[in-house]
Amino acid sequence: MTKTLKGIAASDGVAVASAYLLVEPDLSFSKTSISDVDAELARYKKAIKESTEEVKKIRDTAKKSLGKDEAQVFEAHLMILSDPEFTGAIEKEIKDQKINSEAALDETSQKFIKIFEGMTDNTYMQQRAADVRDVSKRIMAHLLGKQLPNPASIDHEVIVVAHDLTPSDTAQLSKKYVKGFVTDVGGRTAHSAIMARSLEIPAVVGTESITKSVKNGQTLIVDGLNGDAVVDPSDSQVTDYKQKGSDFLKQKAERKKLKNEPSVTADGKKFTIAANIGTPNDMKGVHDNGAEAIGLYRTEFLYMDSSDFPTEDQQFEAYKKVIEGMNGKQVIIRTMDIGGDKHLDYWDLPKEMNPFLGVRAIRLSLKNQKIFRTQLRALLRASAYGNLGIMFPMIGTLKELREAKSILFDEKDKLVKKGVKVGKDLQIGMMIEVPAAAVLADQFAKEVDFFSIGTNDLIQYTMAADRGNDNVSYLYQPANPSILRLIKHTIDSAHKNGIWCGMCGEAAGDNTMFPILLSMGLDEYSMSATSVLRIRSLMKKFNTKDLKELANKACYVSETAEENKELVDNLMKKLNK
Amino acid sequence: MTKTLKGIAASDGVAVASAYLLVEPDLSFSKTSISDVDAELARYKKAIKESTEEVKKIRDTAKKSLGKDEAQVFEAHLMILSDPEFTGAIEKEIKDQKINSEAALDETSQKFIKIFEGMTDNTYMQQRAADVRDVSKRIMAHLLGKQLPNPASIDHEVIVVAHDLTPSDTAQLSKKYVKGFVTDVGGRTAHSAIMARSLEIPAVVGTESITKSVKNGQTLIVDGLNGDAVVDPSDSQVTDYKQKGSDFLKQKAERKKLKNEPSVTADGKKFTIAANIGTPNDMKGVHDNGAEAIGLYRTEFLYMDSSDFPTEDQQFEAYKKVIEGMNGKQVIIRTMDIGGDKHLDYWDLPKEMNPFLGVRAIRLSLKNQKIFRTQLRALLRASAYGNLGIMFPMIGTLKELREAKSILFDEKDKLVKKGVKVGKDLQIGMMIEVPAAAVLADQFAKEVDFFSIGTNDLIQYTMAADRGNDNVSYLYQPANPSILRLIKHTIDSAHKNGIWCGMCGEAAGDNTMFPILLSMGLDEYSMSATSVLRIRSLMKKFNTKDLKELANKACYVSETAEENKELVDNLMKKLNK
Repeated sequence: MTKTLKGIAASDGVAVASAYLLVEPDLSFSKTSISDVDAELARYKKAIKESTEEVKKIRDTAKKSLGKDEAQVFEAHLMILSDPEFTGAIEKEIKDQKINSEAALDETSQKFIKIFEGMTDNTYMQQRAADVRDVSKRIMAHLLGKQLPNPASIDHEVIVVAHDLTPSDTAQLSKKYVKGFVTDVGGRTAHSAIMARSLEIPAVVGTESITKSVKNGQTLIVDGLNGDAVVDPSDSQVTDYKQKGSDFLKQKAERKKLKNEPSVTADGKKFTIAANIGTPNDMKGVHDNGAEAIGLYRTEFLYMDSSDFPTEDQQFEAYKKVIEGMNGKQVIIRTMDIGGDKHLDYWDLPKEMNPFLGVRAIRLSLKNQKIFRTQLRALLRASAYGNLGIMFPMIGTLKELREAKSILFDEKDKLVKKGVKVGKDLQIGMMIEVPAAAVLADQFAKEVDFFSIGTNDLIQYTMAADRGNDNVSYLYQPANPSILRLIKHTIDSAHKNGIWCGMCGEAAGDNTMFPILLSMGLDEYSMSATSVLRIRSLMKKFNTKDLKELANKACYVSETAEENKELVDNLMKKLNK
Repeated sequence: MTKTLKGIAASDGVAVASAYLLVEPDLSFSKTSISDVDAELARYKKAIKESTEEVKKIRDTAKKSLGKDEAQVFEAHLMILSDPEFTGAIEKEIKDQKINSEAALDETSQKFIKIFEGMTDNTYMQQRAADVRDVSKRIMAHLLGKQLPNPASIDHEVIVVAHDLTPSDTAQLSKKYVKGFVTDVGGRTAHSAIMARSLEIPAVVGTESITKSVKNGQTLIVDGLNGDAVVDPSDSQVTDYKQKGSDFLKQKAERKKLKNEPSVTADGKKFTIAANIGTPNDMKGVHDNGAEAIGLYRTEFLYMDSSDFPTEDQQFEAYKKVIEGMNGKQVIIRTMDIGGDKHLDYWDLPKEMNPFLGVRAIRLSLKNQKIFRTQLRALLRASAYGNLGIMFPMIGTLKELREAKSILFDEKDKLVKKGVKVGKDLQIGMMIEVPAAAVLADQFAKEVDFFSIGTNDLIQYTMAADRGNDNVSYLYQPANPSILRLIKHTIDSAHKNGIWCGMCGEAAGDNTMFPILLSMGLDEYSMSATSVLRIRSLMKKFNTKDLKELANKACYVSETAEENKELVDNLMKKLNK
């Protein structure tokens, strides 16, 4: 029976294919004593044989669908399955202890995992712990007569259905066959959503119950434009959605033509559409989508993807690569935003009751100046290679801003004295994300070259609602008039003081928020690279004269986020007529 | 050598006395084997004898200083010290195991504690576990040659010095001899600070190192007016501070005369000074200090001091008692603010990563309507007995306010239909503490009868700084221009819409904030009962005409909290000339 689930539209596009459930079966068991040891050994050996055959099959498909390198892990699995030290130890347990194979497998594999994990000076052997864990899970499934999901063996077009998707899940997915994602949980910023946008496949997340609503192999439609997942659709639905999907692809191809065009409104007003990046590897997407600048380079990944603090030179190389890669277009690099929900294994910070309201970002930098100064030196040295803006996150008071700036100038003076070249165009800016800073934007504007509004945090604090807490997600309202008033005050304050104002939060690329922001005169819109062309195309539709009243209405007439959504929807309807 | 420590002024007044260190000694020990059992038994018996003599002495002093009931606990301790089942078991351990007394004591007492704590159906026996723990600690101290602090044996005037003070510590303190507190940690809202204000003795908290800076018996000055603790003062300092203390007491006596006077400025403008309470027991303080209303009754204590949800009738009785007790003066009762840092043993709520940004207060009430409706019915029934205002905490959106109101009206209609009387003067209001609500105060003002600004939370969210996290306490800035702008906008919006605006956060009774709030025309100032007369006396000094410019200067000219403190300090200097 046809069933439509509502979720969050997390990545554009429409796809129709059979569902592939990436759901782990229950592998719990009871430890029992056995009397017939030979029968138990036979049962165990059968599971080993079945597992081996299965892994071989997966390896062969993976070679074709994922490539030789990605299939390599399965060779390691086969080695374990044929290693008498491992399989023999389990057999011995069964014989000596007279226990069932499940218990013998569990106890033995735990022992091996512990030994491998204990080899802290040997990364290669430590990684073997994960292999033993994977292989044991597979043997256990065969012993219990259960089927493990084998994403690497997918050899036809599917839509992956999961409770949630982790990075290791997605690593095994074939880009050739996976046509979309539908998940139970998550929002637009979940890993699965980001992954889908980077793969440019449709995704609907947060449906709450898709894993319980669809069976393996059933036809499933994922409409990432509207946030719908249709289980077991009718023939006419399949036809309609396929049409919708091909319309979308046509539109996308149209948009691709805008890649090298400027970002202008219908009446010729020019703005900047920029991209947010996390590592220098994201530069390809920036160029492919014709972003005119980098509005946010999140440097915390440099720290998080490392086993110790990155050195000044390591940082310098990364920053230089991005700055040079933009050929003179501006790159805004944000100093590290560690703390809150981002932690480093090698930096033991005090546990906090409310980490989002604790020592994070600039607060942590100001308390740990050695680490901060290292980053600033790397940035200053890299500034000579292009057009750099340095941005401080989580500034709440003028005192903090002045302190951060004075440390920056101190390092700059020292470098200049040593004869090191520093970029002439270097700009210094700050995030507007703490409500106090938005309220005092008129005062802050006198002391920086630019603002960049971080909507994720600004909303979280203004609404007093953790953006990672599903139970208060109804309060995450970008279009709430309170948020819009703070944004408008920030933009107006910037312009009155002759500086520019950008936005690097999710909202800049949001279809509802964009017309309101344009009406406020926001100068720079920074977003996922894959959103750039959609927004550039949308921008061309608007005549700024027609938008004049929108900002004031959204801030002062509307009382709720829902009213503002309606306001924009009506405007779009008129425009599309 | 004289040494002055800076802390937070947590309770008014000045005292000079000898320091009493309420600091537990290190009672760790090593388990050793013994060869001479008789010598070890003699050592053990000596410790029992010394402990018994000590407890007897404490009991006798406690009877005099604390009263017979409070001294009762020491009789229980003596019973344990003379109980052969307990002391004999330890002797047996020493003999049988040939281990030192410390180890035998520790092992035996742990056993007894476990047995007593296991008697979950017998509260009396469970409490004996605490007695065994206390007695064992004392014997251990004697074995190790250490001295336990014995607050109950204090028989001369002292200033108690501690790292922090817990409720059980303060229960043993003699109100007659304890003249002040100085602690290492804590802020104005710490237990020790609240306790000191309720005992009306001076306190300085958060000195960081007082326990390391003063020795038992050394002379110590605590200046709760300025937040100073002076260790080993000079004779002239002692004289000066004693003078300051007696000036303060004289001033306090003067203020007491204002108890039954109205709260007016020098030019005759009338305002309301109200008190915050937590339970009906706080009413005595309200009357003793001449509060003109109750601006905040925190109902969560009703839930927290209970082993299950309080029934409608239990709540009704508590609310009625307070409302009747005010003889027609207004009582503002806030619906429960559970969640955040306040938890109930009998209500298992999901753990949250950032509880202050989670499901708390009205959010929890709207998700648990049965509990919410019970409270509303109790409030509505109690409203017939006087002048009640019902206030919703943590409102962030108009949708939430409208939902809360519609539930309230629904319950009211049902009660009225049943013929239950409901107060005619009943007002409905909301806290302004979520920044979004402050920004949209002009819209909210159209839908309530009053506002009450909760500065603690408003500051916490606007500055994005957990008010319980010492590492970001520098961002807790009531006088920051961003906070003042939000407060001013709230007050202006209330007045433009013909409703009144109060404040029930700590800031209403703050010497720096009060003149600014008065300048903004805040209608009601609700604070600790013990602050009421100080603020009434301060109010009499101001002519509202002279204050006209203060609010605008504080909001729009000043750039930092420090500048605003200076602004008010200068104003006060002029006024006191």
